[in-house]
Amino acid sequence: MNHKIQQPDSNSLAPFFSPQGVAVIGASHDYSKLGYGLARNLVQSNYQGAVHFVNPKGGSLLNRPVYRHVKLVPDPVDLAILLIPAAYVPQALTECGQRGIKAAIIGSGGFRETGPEGAELEEKCLQIAHHYGMRLIGPNCIGLLDTHLPMDATFLPPPGPPPGDVAFISHSGAICAAVIDWARGQGFGLSRLVSLGNQTDVNETDVLAPVSADPFTRVLTLYLEGISDGRRFIQEAEKVALRKPIIALKVGRFASGQRAVASHTGALAGHENAFNAAFRRAGVIRADTSEEMFDWARALAWCPAPNGRSVAILTNAGGPGVTAADALETNGMALAVLAEDTIRALAGVLPPAASLHNPVDMLASASPEEYAQCLRILLADPGVHSTLVILPPPPMYAAGAVAKAIIPIIHHAEKPVIVALMGERLIQEAVEHFRAAHVPEYRFPERAASALSILAQRSEHLQRASKRTIVNTDIEKEKALKILASESIKSSDDEHGFLPPGVVRSLLEAYDIPMPPEGLAQSAQQAVTLAKQMGFPIALKIISPDISHKSDIGGVLLGIQDEENVYAGFEQILANVKRAKPDATIVGVNVQRMIPQGQEVIVGAIQDAQFGPLVMFGSGGIEVEGMKDVAFALAPVTEEEVEYLLESTWGGRKLNGYRNIAPVDSIAVKNVIYRLAQLAADLPQIQEIEINPLRVLAHGVSALDVRARI
Amino acid sequence: MNHKIQQPDSNSLAPFFSPQGVAVIGASHDYSKLGYGLARNLVQSNYQGAVHFVNPKGGSLLNRPVYRHVKLVPDPVDLAILLIPAAYVPQALTECGQRGIKAAIIGSGGFRETGPEGAELEEKCLQIAHHYGMRLIGPNCIGLLDTHLPMDATFLPPPGPPPGDVAFISHSGAICAAVIDWARGQGFGLSRLVSLGNQTDVNETDVLAPVSADPFTRVLTLYLEGISDGRRFIQEAEKVALRKPIIALKVGRFASGQRAVASHTGALAGHENAFNAAFRRAGVIRADTSEEMFDWARALAWCPAPNGRSVAILTNAGGPGVTAADALETNGMALAVLAEDTIRALAGVLPPAASLHNPVDMLASASPEEYAQCLRILLADPGVHSTLVILPPPPMYAAGAVAKAIIPIIHHAEKPVIVALMGERLIQEAVEHFRAAHVPEYRFPERAASALSILAQRSEHLQRASKRTIVNTDIEKEKALKILASESIKSSDDEHGFLPPGVVRSLLEAYDIPMPPEGLAQSAQQAVTLAKQMGFPIALKIISPDISHKSDIGGVLLGIQDEENVYAGFEQILANVKRAKPDATIVGVNVQRMIPQGQEVIVGAIQDAQFGPLVMFGSGGIEVEGMKDVAFALAPVTEEEVEYLLESTWGGRKLNGYRNIAPVDSIAVKNVIYRLAQLAADLPQIQEIEINPLRVLAHGVSALDVRARI
Repeated sequence: MNHKIQQPDSNSLAPFFSPQGVAVIGASHDYSKLGYGLARNLVQSNYQGAVHFVNPKGGSLLNRPVYRHVKLVPDPVDLAILLIPAAYVPQALTECGQRGIKAAIIGSGGFRETGPEGAELEEKCLQIAHHYGMRLIGPNCIGLLDTHLPMDATFLPPPGPPPGDVAFISHSGAICAAVIDWARGQGFGLSRLVSLGNQTDVNETDVLAPVSADPFTRVLTLYLEGISDGRRFIQEAEKVALRKPIIALKVGRFASGQRAVASHTGALAGHENAFNAAFRRAGVIRADTSEEMFDWARALAWCPAPNGRSVAILTNAGGPGVTAADALETNGMALAVLAEDTIRALAGVLPPAASLHNPVDMLASASPEEYAQCLRILLADPGVHSTLVILPPPPMYAAGAVAKAIIPIIHHAEKPVIVALMGERLIQEAVEHFRAAHVPEYRFPERAASALSILAQRSEHLQRASKRTIVNTDIEKEKALKILASESIKSSDDEHGFLPPGVVRSLLEAYDIPMPPEGLAQSAQQAVTLAKQMGFPIALKIISPDISHKSDIGGVLLGIQDEENVYAGFEQILANVKRAKPDATIVGVNVQRMIPQGQEVIVGAIQDAQFGPLVMFGSGGIEVEGMKDVAFALAPVTEEEVEYLLESTWGGRKLNGYRNIAPVDSIAVKNVIYRLAQLAADLPQIQEIEINPLRVLAHGVSALDVRARI
Repeated sequence: MNHKIQQPDSNSLAPFFSPQGVAVIGASHDYSKLGYGLARNLVQSNYQGAVHFVNPKGGSLLNRPVYRHVKLVPDPVDLAILLIPAAYVPQALTECGQRGIKAAIIGSGGFRETGPEGAELEEKCLQIAHHYGMRLIGPNCIGLLDTHLPMDATFLPPPGPPPGDVAFISHSGAICAAVIDWARGQGFGLSRLVSLGNQTDVNETDVLAPVSADPFTRVLTLYLEGISDGRRFIQEAEKVALRKPIIALKVGRFASGQRAVASHTGALAGHENAFNAAFRRAGVIRADTSEEMFDWARALAWCPAPNGRSVAILTNAGGPGVTAADALETNGMALAVLAEDTIRALAGVLPPAASLHNPVDMLASASPEEYAQCLRILLADPGVHSTLVILPPPPMYAAGAVAKAIIPIIHHAEKPVIVALMGERLIQEAVEHFRAAHVPEYRFPERAASALSILAQRSEHLQRASKRTIVNTDIEKEKALKILASESIKSSDDEHGFLPPGVVRSLLEAYDIPMPPEGLAQSAQQAVTLAKQMGFPIALKIISPDISHKSDIGGVLLGIQDEENVYAGFEQILANVKRAKPDATIVGVNVQRMIPQGQEVIVGAIQDAQFGPLVMFGSGGIEVEGMKDVAFALAPVTEEEVEYLLESTWGGRKLNGYRNIAPVDSIAVKNVIYRLAQLAADLPQIQEIEINPLRVLAHGVSALDVRARI
């Protein structure tokens, strides 16, 4: 998808965002043409740089001359926008290059999205751009705009968006058009909007830094259908998200193709888990719906950061208060326990029948002054981290008057205040006051509650980010590399790429991940000798490149207590395998000292095509795919991510004990996660590696079964 | 909460919904009084019955006389609405009773919601009502309205709701006010609205039948803070839901108190699982948010029932199509695979670059005629069960023109068509056309997808309902009752109410639930004798009313292979118990034949305070509370509910086998669920009963451990 050969250079993108002069190639008199729309928008948006129109027909348009050729365009001109049929684009681009223009937006469609011929044309454009050191946005996009510069370089029908503080970066042009219109309806403004089209050159990652550098932008919102270079996206987004929140709506959740996998980790990883792990690392907030994205954007743009998850609800009626309380709890928030002083102060303001505990129900008689006084009291309570004010269509006072009374308090507050204005027409005046004052308001208390939870999530991310570190373990990477490079692996490499057990063991040893004592026996007598060295009980397992689920076919025997049974067991396994898989190549039988009972977990890692190494942790055993009690993180992992892996799975939580399940050594488990993640990051040639189970004892762990594929 | 002593009689509620004459007691000249608001609304709503005003001050109001006393009010009058201070309500109610009025709405507050004094006043009102055979709505409510009768008997500020087909029944008055305003904003109308207030007499269940009997009502929506009588609600709602869809927003999800429980079933049951099981049985659709409830209501009111879950998406842009496809899959819908004929027909209409496979992307150039033609083609495809039409702010044609072109097709379709109008201002004209035509439209494709899934859910409910039957098992209820009534139980009844194992065994025998052979030993020698009768291997378990988690304290020994170890095991268990719980009363040691390995599940039942007997099924073992892989249904269960219990849990799904987990006897499991549910329904004195584990073999099952509490 991404043909880029050069790494992005933010400076080279400057002409897109602050051009000195713009040439519209294909500017048209015809109202139905995109070239007319763009010319009109550029002029009407009050762009202060030079505006030049180019069309072989010449003449004049919107009181400006139309040049017949781009070479005739006078200085300054550093951005070209092409709205001409696809077939003419390469020629025009060449002329732009010759004219010294270093940035071009190709709005026209008719390229890769139409088939192989279009793709060829697109490739040609990219080559021309490379030749002239020119950057390209598009083709097949609606352009970009900046409401503060100002500049509207899109061809969408007016009106453009109101100026504001939310930036929008999109893989879909049609969604851009909708967002501009939604913004108007939902009462927020846009700062910048970039439609990326086919991304033949500039992609979503490239524009993150320049868009976030805009001082008017307070929140970045992204509509993504995929990501071109996962690791670079994470890197860039992580930097940006430390300064400004990023919200992403990632679609195409169900479109991902199935890859061939040989491990539980691979089967469970999927596209979406990789995206979630990546967004988690980068601090990108993932929205599930378009509505959610813009609900959250307003709150993030306009509210201070809360210091915690305790919310006070201020209402004039019981039902909406209960609804809001429910929604807050659903979103992982808590109802603040009000201080005695707070309750006393509320009692001094409210009638006796009012409810002074959270939710604070002032009753239907609540006046604008009561709203204001109570809000001030609640915000002064140190146990209140944020406040949700509820305004149903009030039976006694106009909602607008309440809005006017509380807006100054909200502006002075250092805590977020969000408003649920329940209704439509009767609360319209209040809506307008709040929007003008940049106070986030929502028609439904549930949406307000969701926005509050995102503010808390954002605060927590910033707190974590200040102290997150990738854990580097004391490992012998060089040794591991040597192991993988050795001739013996290449020769024993099976057709599925599984590494022989001895190699796997050496790798784990290099990363200091404990395994039970074991050895490979090629005869029953050899098995007995090994068993005697290790001590009993002993487990025997068939080793064959052709057999992945060993226990299915009787390839495993456990709990063998003496030499005699080791001998018999070896013969039995070989017989079982012969019966089930007569053609299987037999490497031998693994002889292993059995480890005492304990808890069992799975730790695995895979190489994701988009984001590189991922590590998985969860409940192990043969039911892992059915139970789906697993979580993913990018490898190598941060301390905080390892905590997340353990806390978000039952397999992790129960390491601390539960009822009659004894607690076990969770620190040793964390160490294995760090080390396996490090291994996956160090050795990208290992496609999948999985410890299942990792036996966890009161002290220490042991990797009972490990498989790795290159 | 519910003081009702009589069963509801729908006829007695008739005066609320079709009164011949209404007396407003407390009608007032003072604009700020609720008594003015109600008088005004009643007159302005164009109510055709007699309207009488009562106020001791007399005079006239809104061109009508004001009577000084209700006894002076002329015929006809069958409904009184009281808006006077709480203290005066009992006297006024008495006078209404004397005047022969059989129905009253008490709008005033100041009753139970304010404390014990108010509760006493409310109780007094109820007694007066009973004395005169009068029905009461309220107190502390905003009244009711019917837009078709018409009659607005609320005191809310105008405008009232537009007439429509959605009825709303509410435990909160403030939510009523918000709903009226939301309806106007979201473009649907209300048929009836009932605010129930404190529900001293009439509650949510009572009004279901009369509201649904209204021919103008097509959907019932409920805002519930609880349910007064769970089983009666289910009964009534189930009947209503066969004719008209019911959607409920049930709040107070996190407010439920914790009850004392002794079983996993009890710990997991909780308030919400009981509500979900009840709504499932009744066919009530549960909404999570207010917005969802009304999004769904419009679709259910206006669309025909789909025959399945396959959806065609018709769009003029890629991004919105992908977003909609994602949202459909998230909501459990499928993208229809279009027939070859359909694709050929689309190709005849659309330009070559259009995408003819679902989502059908007509490209930005799509005209109103193309929208219409393609929609007709898609609806004709037998594999398409419903259609989602997407209209972003169109770059080339006005959305209004598209609306006009497709509305006639939607009206003729026998399949649902739902529209995602993405935007706000630019699509306003189209919004108005669709609303006038009763075509559900949504600003965001995700909300449209959710509405389509609810239509499918509703269809499926009706299909299932036509063939659902409670499964009656061949059981010996009389024998079970005799067992529970026997003296021996009462005498051995422990302080926690646990039944002795022998009694539990007899109960399960009466309901034909298989258990392993077992007996109670009070000496090691007795244990050996029993073991010899049963055959080996043997399990030993301590029996004590003071010990619920036997294995925690070494009270269980498994896999004993011979007489000698039975003898030693008996002594060891007693020693373990003495050490861990020296004061525990020891009934003896249970000697049980061990059952072969197999799968293990949990089947439990409890008596829910609100909804009566509930049955639980899921993954068993000691981790059941941690894994939470369980599901609930009302007892006794329907066949369809048992299928649901198995399908919605991993413990149920894996009965059919998974990878190297062999399939087992799921029919035997279903039988146990039927029988245990029947037992819980027959014997409400059994508070909790739990089989954990139920061992499931290739043929047959065995209840390995059962505990029951009365």
